[in-house]
Amino acid sequence: MKLPLCFATSLGIGSVLSYKRLCRNSDEIKCRSFFGIPENFMAEPVTSYKELQANSKSMRNKMELFLMRSQRDFCNALAAHEPEASWRIDKWERKSGGGGISCVMQEGKVLEKAGVNISVVHGVLPAKAVESMNSRGKAIVKSPAPFFACGISSVIHPRNPYVPTIHFNYRYFEVDDGNGKTLSWFGGGTDLTPYYLNEEDAVFFHQMLKKALMKHGPDYYKKFKKWCDTYFYLPHRGETRGVGGIFFDDLNISQTQDETFALIKDCAEATFKAYIPMVEKHKNSGYGLAERNWQLIRRGRYVEFNLIHDRGTQFGLRTPDARIESILMSLPAIAKWEYMHEVKGGSEEDKLMSVLKTPVDWVPLTD
Amino acid sequence: MKLPLCFATSLGIGSVLSYKRLCRNSDEIKCRSFFGIPENFMAEPVTSYKELQANSKSMRNKMELFLMRSQRDFCNALAAHEPEASWRIDKWERKSGGGGISCVMQEGKVLEKAGVNISVVHGVLPAKAVESMNSRGKAIVKSPAPFFACGISSVIHPRNPYVPTIHFNYRYFEVDDGNGKTLSWFGGGTDLTPYYLNEEDAVFFHQMLKKALMKHGPDYYKKFKKWCDTYFYLPHRGETRGVGGIFFDDLNISQTQDETFALIKDCAEATFKAYIPMVEKHKNSGYGLAERNWQLIRRGRYVEFNLIHDRGTQFGLRTPDARIESILMSLPAIAKWEYMHEVKGGSEEDKLMSVLKTPVDWVPLTD
Repeated sequence: MKLPLCFATSLGIGSVLSYKRLCRNSDEIKCRSFFGIPENFMAEPVTSYKELQANSKSMRNKMELFLMRSQRDFCNALAAHEPEASWRIDKWERKSGGGGISCVMQEGKVLEKAGVNISVVHGVLPAKAVESMNSRGKAIVKSPAPFFACGISSVIHPRNPYVPTIHFNYRYFEVDDGNGKTLSWFGGGTDLTPYYLNEEDAVFFHQMLKKALMKHGPDYYKKFKKWCDTYFYLPHRGETRGVGGIFFDDLNISQTQDETFALIKDCAEATFKAYIPMVEKHKNSGYGLAERNWQLIRRGRYVEFNLIHDRGTQFGLRTPDARIESILMSLPAIAKWEYMHEVKGGSEEDKLMSVLKTPVDWVPLTD
Repeated sequence: MKLPLCFATSLGIGSVLSYKRLCRNSDEIKCRSFFGIPENFMAEPVTSYKELQANSKSMRNKMELFLMRSQRDFCNALAAHEPEASWRIDKWERKSGGGGISCVMQEGKVLEKAGVNISVVHGVLPAKAVESMNSRGKAIVKSPAPFFACGISSVIHPRNPYVPTIHFNYRYFEVDDGNGKTLSWFGGGTDLTPYYLNEEDAVFFHQMLKKALMKHGPDYYKKFKKWCDTYFYLPHRGETRGVGGIFFDDLNISQTQDETFALIKDCAEATFKAYIPMVEKHKNSGYGLAERNWQLIRRGRYVEFNLIHDRGTQFGLRTPDARIESILMSLPAIAKWEYMHEVKGGSEEDKLMSVLKTPVDWVPLTD
């Protein structure tokens, strides 16, 4: 019988506590109970588990538990396909309030670079952020405004060019409007970036997301799918990042937050159910240097989008006490830029480019 | 006797005419006279050579001739060290006025990716650009304002991690102030990005730039050196891009433009004289995977700076009819991002980091 191999090391960087989880499968549970971590989470939650349970009706706590479970489930589902690398787990604290748990895997056989991060932060919003929220229709009369934000953010860059990259982010926000009211909303999205187009995958992916959203209303998928195509667009290249998905912000279905929370949970679940089979299906596909080269060139576009346009990245980089390594884990391990790279007409690369130049409705937008 | 191997191909992309210069050394002159290109320039100038000669007192024309000669000289000096790759020469036209010549070399034995680009453009400046100029102290009363701009921009990414990356840009600007007056100024700079610190190189580089600037006044080097350290700074990493150099804008030494033009020419000349010996000195230095890996990680920072902060790149990407491939030639062929990469204390990588964290005065700032 193998012994659990997990260990914890303090990195000495601020208040980051870093584990490396080398244990797997049947040893997994023992490993975690070794640390006494509840529910086999990747690490102790930012808010104490006792508090999360004691105040289980608060949306902050419900959301944090959902994030912890999602992180654990997605990390475990991915790890089942990765024979070599392990999750490095960094639990960090934010000086001005809250913290997060970053799980990152690098140099795997299947997963070249993968990150599944959660953050649970609170404090006061700077005037600029309040201004930006008010410009989106909020009515926050006092600034700086007390806020709470939590979310999960993940980018998976597999090694095999036939396995697409996925990104998803689901978040919950609360802000004090300065008039005795707490404004709250949800945001998020999931989008898929293949290097080679597999229409069956694209259709399946959109079907899953559509099915999740249709449970909550007839128009969400149509609206969020279009929002995704508009958001993940690289204007200087005239192309979308991938085959799209869904994207939304400022969401509040009704006065009771539970309905929106249920939608968020369904979208996250659909994401995992859509993506994991794609990893399984393509992780052993044969490829050569030409396919790898193309993947690295496309990853260059991923870097361009994230560094120039992604609002989350921009916001993070400009936040003084943000954890830069957690923000930039979204960048691929390797990217290439080739001057005047051209794809051959009619090639597999060209097929991908045509759907990036003109977004496709992979499934009917409404029923 | 070898025959000239040059040929020209039309790419069919807009109005780009592309040559590949395979000829070398003694065949070089024959090759260029084959195209009938004056003064052995890399391509026909944007403004006809006849016009450049006929109106030789105009600063626009003097500057364009200087740019053409600089491009030719720097390209030839680099090519002398590159045994495998050749310059790809793209001459392009800008729909709204003017054009440029991009010389790019890729996948060389010594030069992994190198670009030496010139542009000579004119038209009308959009209101936003006028606003930005006025905020810098110009007094342009009409908008949109007619303008003329020309410049040379170069980034050289050698393959060997012991050869530093260099960037330089020298430019001239004219804009109609709407009150019958033409405002004009010069801008530019040269900065060096080593992967391994060679103090002798850093000192030599700064000595050359200082010497060039001291000819024109006692304070330019001090001012432009500090401006460079401030400009090429990555705030989210808390580090400068490299060992600095010089950076300046809105420069007009006196009413006669010739004095500023002479300064620009001296800086460009000092750049070439400082850099080419570094290529020669280190191009055959031995290195292994660890040094290559470090170089690629540092190149990731170069990408971060260019895509997030570089004003020229930002401006270019937001200009509707800009030539994206010429703007993004500055990005390295390959870059890496490793989560939580750490350098070993006291290592050669650590020595570099310490000068990036705290900029050094490599030579006395004044005499």
